[in-house]
Amino acid sequence: MNNFDFYNPTRIVFGDKTIAKLDELLAKDAKVLLLYGGQSAKKTGTLDEVKAALGQRQVAEFGGIEPNPTYETLIKAVEMIKAQSFDFLLAVGGGSVIDGTKFIAAAACFDDEKDPWSILENYGTNITQALPFGSVLTLPATGSEMNNGGVVTHKGKHAKLPFRSPLVYPQFSILDPTKTYTLPERQIANGVVDAFVHTVEQYLTYPVEGMIQDRFAEGILQTLIEVGPKALAEPNNYDVRANLMWSATMALNGLIGAGVPQDWATHMVGHELTAMHGIDHARTLAIVLPGMLQIRKESKAAKLKQYAQRVWHITEGSDDEMIDQAIAKTEEFFQQMGIGTRLSDYDLDEATIEPLTEQLKAHGMVALGENNDVTPEISANVLKLRI
Amino acid sequence: MNNFDFYNPTRIVFGDKTIAKLDELLAKDAKVLLLYGGQSAKKTGTLDEVKAALGQRQVAEFGGIEPNPTYETLIKAVEMIKAQSFDFLLAVGGGSVIDGTKFIAAAACFDDEKDPWSILENYGTNITQALPFGSVLTLPATGSEMNNGGVVTHKGKHAKLPFRSPLVYPQFSILDPTKTYTLPERQIANGVVDAFVHTVEQYLTYPVEGMIQDRFAEGILQTLIEVGPKALAEPNNYDVRANLMWSATMALNGLIGAGVPQDWATHMVGHELTAMHGIDHARTLAIVLPGMLQIRKESKAAKLKQYAQRVWHITEGSDDEMIDQAIAKTEEFFQQMGIGTRLSDYDLDEATIEPLTEQLKAHGMVALGENNDVTPEISANVLKLRI
Repeated sequence: MNNFDFYNPTRIVFGDKTIAKLDELLAKDAKVLLLYGGQSAKKTGTLDEVKAALGQRQVAEFGGIEPNPTYETLIKAVEMIKAQSFDFLLAVGGGSVIDGTKFIAAAACFDDEKDPWSILENYGTNITQALPFGSVLTLPATGSEMNNGGVVTHKGKHAKLPFRSPLVYPQFSILDPTKTYTLPERQIANGVVDAFVHTVEQYLTYPVEGMIQDRFAEGILQTLIEVGPKALAEPNNYDVRANLMWSATMALNGLIGAGVPQDWATHMVGHELTAMHGIDHARTLAIVLPGMLQIRKESKAAKLKQYAQRVWHITEGSDDEMIDQAIAKTEEFFQQMGIGTRLSDYDLDEATIEPLTEQLKAHGMVALGENNDVTPEISANVLKLRI
Repeated sequence: MNNFDFYNPTRIVFGDKTIAKLDELLAKDAKVLLLYGGQSAKKTGTLDEVKAALGQRQVAEFGGIEPNPTYETLIKAVEMIKAQSFDFLLAVGGGSVIDGTKFIAAAACFDDEKDPWSILENYGTNITQALPFGSVLTLPATGSEMNNGGVVTHKGKHAKLPFRSPLVYPQFSILDPTKTYTLPERQIANGVVDAFVHTVEQYLTYPVEGMIQDRFAEGILQTLIEVGPKALAEPNNYDVRANLMWSATMALNGLIGAGVPQDWATHMVGHELTAMHGIDHARTLAIVLPGMLQIRKESKAAKLKQYAQRVWHITEGSDDEMIDQAIAKTEEFFQQMGIGTRLSDYDLDEATIEPLTEQLKAHGMVALGENNDVTPEISANVLKLRI
């Protein structure tokens, strides 16, 4: 097992009717800014439920945080906070709203002399203070509700950059599975695949005897395989949605990645597909991952075999056959979730590969993966397998 | 899945040579009180290593915290702190030293007008403040390094009581697996069984569709079954000790117990065996657990079958046969760790059962277990199976 440092102070309040707990979670005299995305938080009644729970507290709203939240939008919330000085930010939404709120919390405390975008340029290392914030999660997928990272897009600069800081853990996150009942199928399917690939990126590398980490990762993957299709078929099944929600949180809260190598090459190539062609993040992962595993199966062989045996219960065939079966099963699972796994499913062909490889080079993504050996050429070969 | 509230802010610094990180973890001007148990922290050099890492900081020592730490000893540390006002407490040892330090941290900030023992009488609910503290763990077993509970014995009152409070989480815990190399076999064996039974108490109840919790618990149990015997056979095997250490921490840091029923009847009966006959805590659990599972197998049938299949990979026989095999395997595992699983292994016979049942009644342990249906009579029947 590798050495590690694990710290996660976010309090999780999980279950049915837990939004009412906001009254205990926040100071009675807190002046609160509610942050949310589009109309769904209003239409579903979640925003009203949150406001009711906040009772007599002073509450203002900032809506319109978009999927892939933009600096241009978020900075308006920062200005609002500087003008009106709130004590607490409360994000109501999914990963984009929570990611955006993390940036806003840090930027609102940032030195007036400095450009807040520099937080992104420094991957968050220059954050020295942040407003306290919490979240009410409505979309299980990214894990942002229990981690300290976020991604912000600067439209003006054509940049999408990540940041993290120990100062931007949510103080608490409320996870009420019933709030996911009204989500569109597409978002549920994306959430399942996103959580699945988050887990794979921290698990399918090379063995370092991280036995607990492996077992936990395998447990999350097996749970997602079991609940994913049911989450589409039975949208009001509480236990299915609860297990999906807790799986997605556990997939990216630092625990399964502590003390083990991590890959993330699939994510980096996927980001370029989103940037160039607007494909949903999770869908880009479903396209790229089977190719990454296929092309890199030699260096990943030991873990791929373990994945075949423990997650997919494949026991027949040579090691290579077992691995091929496991990769095929992975792709079938994504398809079962209604997600296209080929570039051609998104009307893309071989012509997309060269410009995308150039973008990887332009963004410095030239030595990806747990062994830093995934060159742009290898990424191109991965994509050639995925036409 | 049941509703739950999960919060655990302890930072874990894990790995070889991590004691040196104390220098980053503590303020440069901190005045530190080191707390430890017997001579082993000195003899092994761990205490010196800790002091070296603390560099020029003002450091005082308080040694002699015993296994099953006593109020009488701990209160002397409280007096020392009140007289000399330290900023930070640093526990160097196992569960007893860390449990004791939690009490000291709270009692040192307790109202001078009030009796600090009332902290135990109120299960910690009257703690309003505690000194910050951390730990350097030398003995993997109890999980105290990453939870907010402790147990203190009052010799004068013949009482052993638990307490907990969100204010007594260690700020950090350093887990260096090499520090366990010199532990006696008996302590390693006890630690493995203690962590195993902690997990079982939160897992072998009745199903509530806590799929992630079940998978994680099964992962810890499978890891302990794999590393336990190796930890005895290969005391200097780093990965074995690392996985044992991380398993024991994960077994009782709140995660696998969040959102699921919990039992703890085995622990309550075991505590009486320790109190009356001085048997090591883990050994009492090894005596009691197989009987608890046998007698209560009807109400635990669904989870026992799952345990048989997923943890012990038993696939043959009727449900009842599979369950019996799993209980037998559990007992064999404890024996494989060199631990006696019968009262007679500790020179006790049937005569011990009635007085012990009376003690359970005297301590209010009359409705134990996840269904509150384990009466003293049932506990007596459990022990009759264990002669």
